[in-house]
Amino acid sequence: MTMKEKVIFTNLVGQAIDTLVAEAGNPQTVVVADTNTAQYVLPVLVNDSKAVADSEVITVKSGDGNKSLEALTDLWKKLAELEATRSTLVINLGGGMVSDLSGFAAATYKRGMRCINVPTTLLAAVDASVGGKTGINFGGYKNQIGTFTEPEAVIISTIFFNTLPQQQILSGYAEMIKHGLLEDTDTLSRLLAFSPVYPMFDSQSLLPIIEASVGVKSRIVEEDKTEAGIRKALNFGHTIGHAIEAYSYKRQSPVPHGYAVAWGMVAELVLSNMELGFPGDTLHTVAAYVLKNYGAYDITCDDYPALIAAMRQDKKNRSADSITFTLLESVGHPKIDCVVDQKQIEAALDIYRDLMHLA
Amino acid sequence: MTMKEKVIFTNLVGQAIDTLVAEAGNPQTVVVADTNTAQYVLPVLVNDSKAVADSEVITVKSGDGNKSLEALTDLWKKLAELEATRSTLVINLGGGMVSDLSGFAAATYKRGMRCINVPTTLLAAVDASVGGKTGINFGGYKNQIGTFTEPEAVIISTIFFNTLPQQQILSGYAEMIKHGLLEDTDTLSRLLAFSPVYPMFDSQSLLPIIEASVGVKSRIVEEDKTEAGIRKALNFGHTIGHAIEAYSYKRQSPVPHGYAVAWGMVAELVLSNMELGFPGDTLHTVAAYVLKNYGAYDITCDDYPALIAAMRQDKKNRSADSITFTLLESVGHPKIDCVVDQKQIEAALDIYRDLMHLA
Repeated sequence: MTMKEKVIFTNLVGQAIDTLVAEAGNPQTVVVADTNTAQYVLPVLVNDSKAVADSEVITVKSGDGNKSLEALTDLWKKLAELEATRSTLVINLGGGMVSDLSGFAAATYKRGMRCINVPTTLLAAVDASVGGKTGINFGGYKNQIGTFTEPEAVIISTIFFNTLPQQQILSGYAEMIKHGLLEDTDTLSRLLAFSPVYPMFDSQSLLPIIEASVGVKSRIVEEDKTEAGIRKALNFGHTIGHAIEAYSYKRQSPVPHGYAVAWGMVAELVLSNMELGFPGDTLHTVAAYVLKNYGAYDITCDDYPALIAAMRQDKKNRSADSITFTLLESVGHPKIDCVVDQKQIEAALDIYRDLMHLA
Repeated sequence: MTMKEKVIFTNLVGQAIDTLVAEAGNPQTVVVADTNTAQYVLPVLVNDSKAVADSEVITVKSGDGNKSLEALTDLWKKLAELEATRSTLVINLGGGMVSDLSGFAAATYKRGMRCINVPTTLLAAVDASVGGKTGINFGGYKNQIGTFTEPEAVIISTIFFNTLPQQQILSGYAEMIKHGLLEDTDTLSRLLAFSPVYPMFDSQSLLPIIEASVGVKSRIVEEDKTEAGIRKALNFGHTIGHAIEAYSYKRQSPVPHGYAVAWGMVAELVLSNMELGFPGDTLHTVAAYVLKNYGAYDITCDDYPALIAAMRQDKKNRSADSITFTLLESVGHPKIDCVVDQKQIEAALDIYRDLMHLA
């Protein structure tokens, strides 16, 4: 890990890539794309960027299930076949799956090559592409093996988002709201004033809001690259969010990650209100926004034991006896490592159901 | 990579481990040993260290051939079975093979656990254990996959060396002489005044010399952790040394790594003399020391083409057209990235043969 990573916000992606490649001394470049981005995004960039047109291309199978040791091994082999060296620049073109897998391959091939991330989904743009987390799933655990290795640069644009399904846009937007909650009331208000719902929303006007959101994450990561302390603030909404996500898979009716995080944030804002006095009016505003855009995740009190069991599985939870949360004292004031009693969690879920009009 | 790694020189190894474990907050500890150290070294440490006695133990097969993806995968699985977390402290007990393999597993398991190295061979003590290089062999290339991840601490002692074969002691000592050449004439003289040959030598008096030698490596690594510049000085002797080593395997009469480095240093001192005016008297002193302790690697001019071809394979050589060396202007003054003409290399090998009484 060296300096703060460089995040470029532009819709002239091809030009930005060519500039970065020139700055890197025109090394060999290798584009790693998934089966979707290779088909739909790569041809556009080949037109717009000389560096991409001249690149070697490695395609990986899309889908989180392919963030595997087999795919990693295959990537290492292909890099060797292309005679890649430490100076070779890898261009990750895809969602978080590509930057996680290929970022890990690059971090470890010959003890580290350079790479840049070009996220093609909103979720990857505001979350996975920034902050240097790389990795694969292993032995049944998500992201069990990986490194903290920041890319040389990240190019964030909205040109790829016009064709994304509505669900994927909303899924990414939930992480942006989280960044607003961690930052200040101005940023949060700006985010809640925007509705990323087709057909009204215009992806151009999204770019400056993304820039504000990613700025929050960059600043937090910069303070704590290896998640020893304050970086845990980024887990806000994720302890209950991950539990909802896991439970939805168990129920065989999976919900997108960002939706689970949106609902998790509402429940954890309730906890924040109960434990730390987080302002009730802001809680109600966020809950109404989530309900309007994401709907509600339907649970009854019969689901509590399974949800709480799933919260205990969270890999950031060190002890089996208590559940640890990142909570908020107010907007912009997270408090990490809050140990919360099971009774309080149940009470918070009751209030979540009220706020979501489920009770 | 954080601060300068902590290197502790002591023959009270058990006590040093217990202190480090206490300082780390008494986390779960896992000893990774190879089949030899598990049998011969671990029982001693179990007596001397409460932390080691209380540790989980993972045994890996010894030998460079087991620095493999299979062994790595197995190690990741075993760490998961032991429910290791990021806070778990791994204690690498063995030669460079153990710290490379297990250091890589620790650097990547859950994006990085802590580890300490307890080298049990002289070569590992003065070379692999310090500086944070981790990795495995892959696809036919040595150390093809890995990271630069420094251990929390390294404990260097000579208590394990009394039972090492003479060849292994000499193999490690060659790297120490290299450090002397990179440092100053005082350090070099001190090293050349000591003869690490049984039965006369006493491993106790070796410890302060090791400390001086490792200090040189630590300072160079600290300046350039990812081998972008001055760290390449540590490759002195290794371009020709690796070629001799590879060629010896091809000839089916393998020589130990350190012996090849010793001969490689003599040849590269000749090159340094020819190209940069390295003092002839020091060259002769080092050559005589190498001849006396390591004997000579027997080559004729018929072997030159194969040796030069092997030099071109060195992974630090970026271009296929030229051969790049780290050479010395004088003791303590390395010059990296010296491009040398093939004719000069042949001339240097002629003089090497003279100095080794082979011509």
